[in-house]
Amino acid sequence: MHQSEHPNPNALNEAAFACPDFGRTQRKGVPEVILAESKTVSQSLAIAASFLERTGRAILSRVTPALEMALVETYSRDGFEWFPASRTAIVRREGGTASPTGGRVGIITAGTSDQPVAEQAAIVCQEMGCTVYTTYDVGVAGLHRLFEPLRELLEVHEVDVIVVAAGMDGALPSVVSGLVNVPVIGLPTAVGYGMGGQGQAALLAMLQTCAPGLAVVNIDNGVGAGAIAGVIANCVAAARSGRQSS
Amino acid sequence: MHQSEHPNPNALNEAAFACPDFGRTQRKGVPEVILAESKTVSQSLAIAASFLERTGRAILSRVTPALEMALVETYSRDGFEWFPASRTAIVRREGGTASPTGGRVGIITAGTSDQPVAEQAAIVCQEMGCTVYTTYDVGVAGLHRLFEPLRELLEVHEVDVIVVAAGMDGALPSVVSGLVNVPVIGLPTAVGYGMGGQGQAALLAMLQTCAPGLAVVNIDNGVGAGAIAGVIANCVAAARSGRQSS
Amino acid sequence: MHQSEHPNPNALNEAAFACPDFGRTQRKGVPEVILAESKTVSQSLAIAASFLERTGRAILSRVTPALEMALVETYSRDGFEWFPASRTAIVRREGGTASPTGGRVGIITAGTSDQPVAEQAAIVCQEMGCTVYTTYDVGVAGLHRLFEPLRELLEVHEVDVIVVAAGMDGALPSVVSGLVNVPVIGLPTAVGYGMGGQGQAALLAMLQTCAPGLAVVNIDNGVGAGAIAGVIANCVAAARSGRQSS
Amino acid sequence: MHQSEHPNPNALNEAAFACPDFGRTQRKGVPEVILAESKTVSQSLAIAASFLERTGRAILSRVTPALEMALVETYSRDGFEWFPASRTAIVRREGGTASPTGGRVGIITAGTSDQPVAEQAAIVCQEMGCTVYTTYDVGVAGLHRLFEPLRELLEVHEVDVIVVAAGMDGALPSVVSGLVNVPVIGLPTAVGYGMGGQGQAALLAMLQTCAPGLAVVNIDNGVGAGAIAGVIANCVAAARSGRQSS
Amino acid sequence: MHQSEHPNPNALNEAAFACPDFGRTQRKGVPEVILAESKTVSQSLAIAASFLERTGRAILSRVTPALEMALVETYSRDGFEWFPASRTAIVRREGGTASPTGGRVGIITAGTSDQPVAEQAAIVCQEMGCTVYTTYDVGVAGLHRLFEPLRELLEVHEVDVIVVAAGMDGALPSVVSGLVNVPVIGLPTAVGYGMGGQGQAALLAMLQTCAPGLAVVNIDNGVGAGAIAGVIANCVAAARSGRQSS
Amino acid sequence: MHQSEHPNPNALNEAAFACPDFGRTQRKGVPEVILAESKTVSQSLAIAASFLERTGRAILSRVTPALEMALVETYSRDGFEWFPASRTAIVRREGGTASPTGGRVGIITAGTSDQPVAEQAAIVCQEMGCTVYTTYDVGVAGLHRLFEPLRELLEVHEVDVIVVAAGMDGALPSVVSGLVNVPVIGLPTAVGYGMGGQGQAALLAMLQTCAPGLAVVNIDNGVGAGAIAGVIANCVAAARSGRQSS
Amino acid sequence: MHQSEHPNPNALNEAAFACPDFGRTQRKGVPEVILAESKTVSQSLAIAASFLERTGRAILSRVTPALEMALVETYSRDGFEWFPASRTAIVRREGGTASPTGGRVGIITAGTSDQPVAEQAAIVCQEMGCTVYTTYDVGVAGLHRLFEPLRELLEVHEVDVIVVAAGMDGALPSVVSGLVNVPVIGLPTAVGYGMGGQGQAALLAMLQTCAPGLAVVNIDNGVGAGAIAGVIANCVAAARSGRQSS
Amino acid sequence: MHQSEHPNPNALNEAAFACPDFGRTQRKGVPEVILAESKTVSQSLAIAASFLERTGRAILSRVTPALEMALVETYSRDGFEWFPASRTAIVRREGGTASPTGGRVGIITAGTSDQPVAEQAAIVCQEMGCTVYTTYDVGVAGLHRLFEPLRELLEVHEVDVIVVAAGMDGALPSVVSGLVNVPVIGLPTAVGYGMGGQGQAALLAMLQTCAPGLAVVNIDNGVGAGAIAGVIANCVAAARSGRQSS
Repeated sequence: MHQSEHPNPNALNEAAFACPDFGRTQRKGVPEVILAESKTVSQSLAIAASFLERTGRAILSRVTPALEMALVETYSRDGFEWFPASRTAIVRREGGTASPTGGRVGIITAGTSDQPVAEQAAIVCQEMGCTVYTTYDVGVAGLHRLFEPLRELLEVHEVDVIVVAAGMDGALPSVVSGLVNVPVIGLPTAVGYGMGGQGQAALLAMLQTCAPGLAVVNIDNGVGAGAIAGVIANCVAAARSGRQSS
Repeated sequence: MHQSEHPNPNALNEAAFACPDFGRTQRKGVPEVILAESKTVSQSLAIAASFLERTGRAILSRVTPALEMALVETYSRDGFEWFPASRTAIVRREGGTASPTGGRVGIITAGTSDQPVAEQAAIVCQEMGCTVYTTYDVGVAGLHRLFEPLRELLEVHEVDVIVVAAGMDGALPSVVSGLVNVPVIGLPTAVGYGMGGQGQAALLAMLQTCAPGLAVVNIDNGVGAGAIAGVIANCVAAARSGRQSS
Repeated sequence: MHQSEHPNPNALNEAAFACPDFGRTQRKGVPEVILAESKTVSQSLAIAASFLERTGRAILSRVTPALEMALVETYSRDGFEWFPASRTAIVRREGGTASPTGGRVGIITAGTSDQPVAEQAAIVCQEMGCTVYTTYDVGVAGLHRLFEPLRELLEVHEVDVIVVAAGMDGALPSVVSGLVNVPVIGLPTAVGYGMGGQGQAALLAMLQTCAPGLAVVNIDNGVGAGAIAGVIANCVAAARSGRQSS
Repeated sequence: MHQSEHPNPNALNEAAFACPDFGRTQRKGVPEVILAESKTVSQSLAIAASFLERTGRAILSRVTPALEMALVETYSRDGFEWFPASRTAIVRREGGTASPTGGRVGIITAGTSDQPVAEQAAIVCQEMGCTVYTTYDVGVAGLHRLFEPLRELLEVHEVDVIVVAAGMDGALPSVVSGLVNVPVIGLPTAVGYGMGGQGQAALLAMLQTCAPGLAVVNIDNGVGAGAIAGVIANCVAAARSGRQSS
Repeated sequence: MHQSEHPNPNALNEAAFACPDFGRTQRKGVPEVILAESKTVSQSLAIAASFLERTGRAILSRVTPALEMALVETYSRDGFEWFPASRTAIVRREGGTASPTGGRVGIITAGTSDQPVAEQAAIVCQEMGCTVYTTYDVGVAGLHRLFEPLRELLEVHEVDVIVVAAGMDGALPSVVSGLVNVPVIGLPTAVGYGMGGQGQAALLAMLQTCAPGLAVVNIDNGVGAGAIAGVIANCVAAARSGRQSS
Repeated sequence: MHQSEHPNPNALNEAAFACPDFGRTQRKGVPEVILAESKTVSQSLAIAASFLERTGRAILSRVTPALEMALVETYSRDGFEWFPASRTAIVRREGGTASPTGGRVGIITAGTSDQPVAEQAAIVCQEMGCTVYTTYDVGVAGLHRLFEPLRELLEVHEVDVIVVAAGMDGALPSVVSGLVNVPVIGLPTAVGYGMGGQGQAALLAMLQTCAPGLAVVNIDNGVGAGAIAGVIANCVAAARSGRQSS
Repeated sequence: MHQSEHPNPNALNEAAFACPDFGRTQRKGVPEVILAESKTVSQSLAIAASFLERTGRAILSRVTPALEMALVETYSRDGFEWFPASRTAIVRREGGTASPTGGRVGIITAGTSDQPVAEQAAIVCQEMGCTVYTTYDVGVAGLHRLFEPLRELLEVHEVDVIVVAAGMDGALPSVVSGLVNVPVIGLPTAVGYGMGGQGQAALLAMLQTCAPGLAVVNIDNGVGAGAIAGVIANCVAAARSGRQSS
Repeated sequence: MHQSEHPNPNALNEAAFACPDFGRTQRKGVPEVILAESKTVSQSLAIAASFLERTGRAILSRVTPALEMALVETYSRDGFEWFPASRTAIVRREGGTASPTGGRVGIITAGTSDQPVAEQAAIVCQEMGCTVYTTYDVGVAGLHRLFEPLRELLEVHEVDVIVVAAGMDGALPSVVSGLVNVPVIGLPTAVGYGMGGQGQAALLAMLQTCAPGLAVVNIDNGVGAGAIAGVIANCVAAARSGRQSS
């Protein structure tokens, strides 16, 4: 499809091309995640191989059964880490492991159905070098189930940030945000039924929160929640480790 | 505009017209409320006069300043009850007062801005013969402010049903419903900003509630919330008063 | 994933943890229903077993064929109750049966397609100890089919509350609410086509009702409709049985 | 702004321009209505003058007070017909009156607030030569108020078509359509509150109707409802008058 | 589930039950269509058998392959009429054929994909006794293809009403309505892509039409379009046949 | 608010700042238009003065009456060009006039109410050096009014691109696109009523067009329509003037 | 279904039928594309055969596997061109190849998932005689990857117009439009998740663009994007080739 | 309205009331902001007085002119700080000033119209003890304007978090997030026109961002953006100040 023709030097300002690689990923430390769902098996394998080559690590989310089988064929069953809830796979080569940053992230879910999305967030944070502490199924219909795990996260694990995943009425992130003094990231999930049941009620309720100190990501965007939480935790950890005084 | 022409006996089945007045209002005890907002001053006055004549009572909600002035002129300032928060007026004649039913309704609001709508609900319940106990501004950002008033409603006043008005994220009705053993009516209010801020987030969150025992009415429909709460309370009160054993 | 680190006593106020179990389920009497649809077969089985152990009863709704087979394997075909319309299963052990409360609930559907959702409501009410009277397919296109069953519900069975399930234009709950003097719960169903056809038209019409004494739950939320109806009926029944005078 | 340049005969096929005036208005008999709302006073006056000149009649809807004053100045208060509910004005000259067609249109409204829109429909039908029979405020909360007026429309006035205007839950057109054997045009009005309250609930409910023989126009489109009703009535009247046998 | 208890004579006004069958179907002549899609095979068969028994005719739309096979088994392949485009089946017994009314309906589609829905409308009209004239695929991108078929409908077949089915931008009904002097029913279809592509753009465009004399039904509601068209055509035909002079 | 602290050289890659001015406006020739509506009078005046200084020209759209008065005070009534329909003002100094490019743009509107938005498009094109040919009010209800003006645009003025502004059902751009062989830009306007009446129906219909060769801009975005039309016309004009052979 | 009756000469103006074929396709050069998705295999084959006969070429998009197999059977695997990403097939006979026009189109995609839709646009442009230059996966998260390919498109290939396909946040078209001086067509794709994830966010962001010189087509409408781009490029190419001077 | 009745000790579990004040505000350091818009002047004054009394500081946002005048009367013009862009007022008494925390927040706006909302965020951060660095109007249409201010924020001011306010297509937060290694909070503003123009396009685009490390708050929620940014900055600052080593 590509044919070359004589150049028109006026069309684009020369200087515009001096704009180089910003090196975002390196500096920010957020790994790219290959969303396998919207790609063919061979596309996913090829991209994964390229990542593995380049960075020593390839993370694939929403892996289809066909891709899972292809990964087993390619890397053997033991050749990659497998997270069944979120259907995430990580293939690694030497050097493909994140260095611990000292960042500490807490992850809470309201219900069982929120776990796959929460697991995505947990994986991203861990691959950013954070330590992750998870507390699943604390619900909001029984708030009392929330307090002990929350105390542990804050006082025992001293987390730097908390991701709260919730579907349905999405009330848990607001409740948590009203109780803690660390930043909270609301992660709405597509759990529910009827009007607003694909996560919209949860997202809207989080956007309308009365509890200050809460920001949100899109419905089911566990990767994005993990990324912002990991960035926050790593910034706090960097400050804690005295990096700013060096 | 009306001109008569020769009849066509086939057009409508004779029997169809035997369907009489169901006498809903009398049996159900819910007073009609004149929504003054969408009517002219003279229309509102005429309808009110007709109600007053027929039932001894006229309730007008969302009264405009012009209508308020016209009511003062017609009935004098002392000739009608005035509820400034909800801009509701009640004109009464002898016999226009609801007989106490023994029904007990609790009404809770999350914030100051929810009061006008909650007041509508309170007025309707009172005009249905219920005793109303209100607790305003218990918020959800500070759940602890909720417990003492809620205990009072349940244990001191022994309410039969609770209306919970909330805007923003609409979380309060779910929280209350999770704590009490009486029916809860969620009353979303058009308080908020941005996406979902006209009460949609509040309504959707209530529709998606995880707490069983909660039903809702439309945004800002204080009259409707009062009606269903009054019906429930009066049914319980009737049972309590031994009507079923007579 | 859990690693402990040295505690930070300032992070959460000690007093916050004194907040105990509110015992909602026990007091309110609404059984938890396991929404099997969004869980794996093994998750559902495990949760059911835990419920069975703890409360003597496990209710599973929207049971997939795979889970149905697993239930048969685990409990044998006769070892659980099966409701095919709503694909609900109830596993019981000794003591897992609700004590009759005396509450009486009427359930009406507009069409055949509304039955599965209505059945969910009926099951929840029965598991709350209520007696349930159902009248299916009274339609609204032929209002005359409505009157005799409605009279029976009110005069013969003396129901304390009526759940009305309807899809399409959702007109039936309003019509019923205009005819009766007990509380009505509108239960919109995702029956219809084109714009508003996933239950939105039905829900919106119920929210905009002109007939007082109607509150609604979300589209296809038969469990929620059963819960609020059961709470109302049980409150009326408790009053009737003179519990309030004890 | 207009400058002429040399023609390019290839750009548009010559034959394309042979497409003449279809004479829609004349044949169909629907008068054009000047929507004054979105025009300046002088634009409205100029268009009205042009219509008056050309057709002997100018109909202006949603007339602003400023335009009303300008009409008084231009034509004197007695020089035009004024319909205050819908703020419609008709200016006429000799020959500007519709010849009676024998078409008969019934118009029903659910509530007081639906009258302005219904009046638009009535005016359009009358200006199409139809006789219009109106019945306002039959409600749906009290269906019994509907039967006697409906019987009169069908049996006394023998209308050929019925326009039913309703806001809120928009149930009335379906109810009417279920009772009569003439075509029914649903006219949703922007009356209501909260979610679906700008006429959407009414429109959706009419679109989802279970009652066959109902078609709808857009929210508050009284002019459009009048046009289709007038066309139907005039077609029936033409058939009745034996035009088809000539 | 049904248990009887002692009656409460106050609950429902006696007179309310005097409301008899309005005989809608008979008078209106619109046959009921069994929407098979949302029913099980055995439910559909049972309802069909009941209709066949009662009215001599059962019409089933959106028949699934499983139901189709069951119909073949029950009635043999030749024992029912089959319309493959709309997957509609008609089972008939003696007396189950509509008497010709003289009503004449034109049906036009914009594209091939609109045919199944248009076929539904055609079937309903024919089963109401109308003669139906169809013109498929006249498009709007090539308006010239529209004129000859439209002329034939109007001048040769002298249709009393036209149904115009269109998806995508839904422009065809407005164009047709601007050209003819009979009533036009817009039938939006769920054909399209991207935003507004499930028929919403088509429906909204028809609701916003500039061409008077157009009313609409919901997306893909071929049955409803056929019903209103059949009612109109039959009313015109009745007038034409001199019924009004008898 | 600004306080400086010691630098952190790692935070942003040095190279990132080598990215210079792309000189978009100069190369593209689209003038910036100051949207006065969302700015205070003094902000608008200041920005206009700055533009005037820098480029010799300031274009202000949606000018409020207060700003209009301030412009008169600042520049005198004759000191700026005033377009009352779109409330646009252009202040110029020497050199602030666009050089003719030879680009030719046709602009068509469906109705009177579309003119203000169309005028915005016309102004932008003229300020880009194009010659603009406008044809207002050709409607779509009477397609025959369209052909002669369209022929003139194509054959007499030989326009390079056509902008078609339409509200309501937004059908005109599709019709025009089906008739011409130059690019067509659909410009939906917020003209209409009821559902889809703020321009959504028009926009969606244009997005769903069956007529190839049509692209759209947002509702009421006359400035954007003018910009893309001007860019197209100027590209064609540049090709025509032989620039590509130099 | 078709029966003829005696004509009614008044129904449609004779002159209305003089409106001939506008010959749009020939003049505009946009080939019709058979959207196979919503048609049966036999319908698609028949329409393709008819196109092949009439124009020497049939283009089928969104070809199902069943249709693909039928095409192989009918034309043999080598008898048609196959584009697997967009599942497009082109069958040709002698004379069924577009003559080169000299038009030059650039196509850019943000991500891998946007390629199928972009390929549709490319095919349409090529079949209109344009030369197409594609640059896939330049992303917006790493803007630096954009500059070199963009420079090549503009300076090496001197494209006349650029189509930019993007899902997710849809930012790439705006960025490109801000950098180049040729027209840009935004092509939103249904790539994303959660709220706005079916291409709505991408479409809305393109409609709200701050960068002038951008127009859009509907979500996933690669055919439409190719058509408008091809029309623009061919207009520029015609001007370039001196057609205007002949 | 309050009448006491005999208690029902079973209604609410005693233990439920042991749940004390969580002291959120004190620990989290986010000041409450009085949203004056939805309150009467006297309500706002009373709440402000109460805050002043209790905390030494009252912050009122969206102050109406009437309230501004009342504040001047109550506290004199010099007795409170006034921020005209966001119409925010701060009244202080001794001790009502936030102690510097060392937190550093950067705030960037895309356009002039985004400033009022951004100012709200800035005020909240400052009142939380943070130092705030603002950069207004860097746009996205001219990305080059962004780099120097961004470098200054990161390298000179070493901000811990950046708030990016943008309306229209909401692209700026994604672009910034792709360039920096600190957390970014997207703050969509209700700036725009047409579809998606009340901030929805901006919010959706931020939710769909491809750039990791971005979380959002609701449209125009400057207070919420300031709160989460302040919490993050203060957490980093606390870590930096060696709290973790104590």
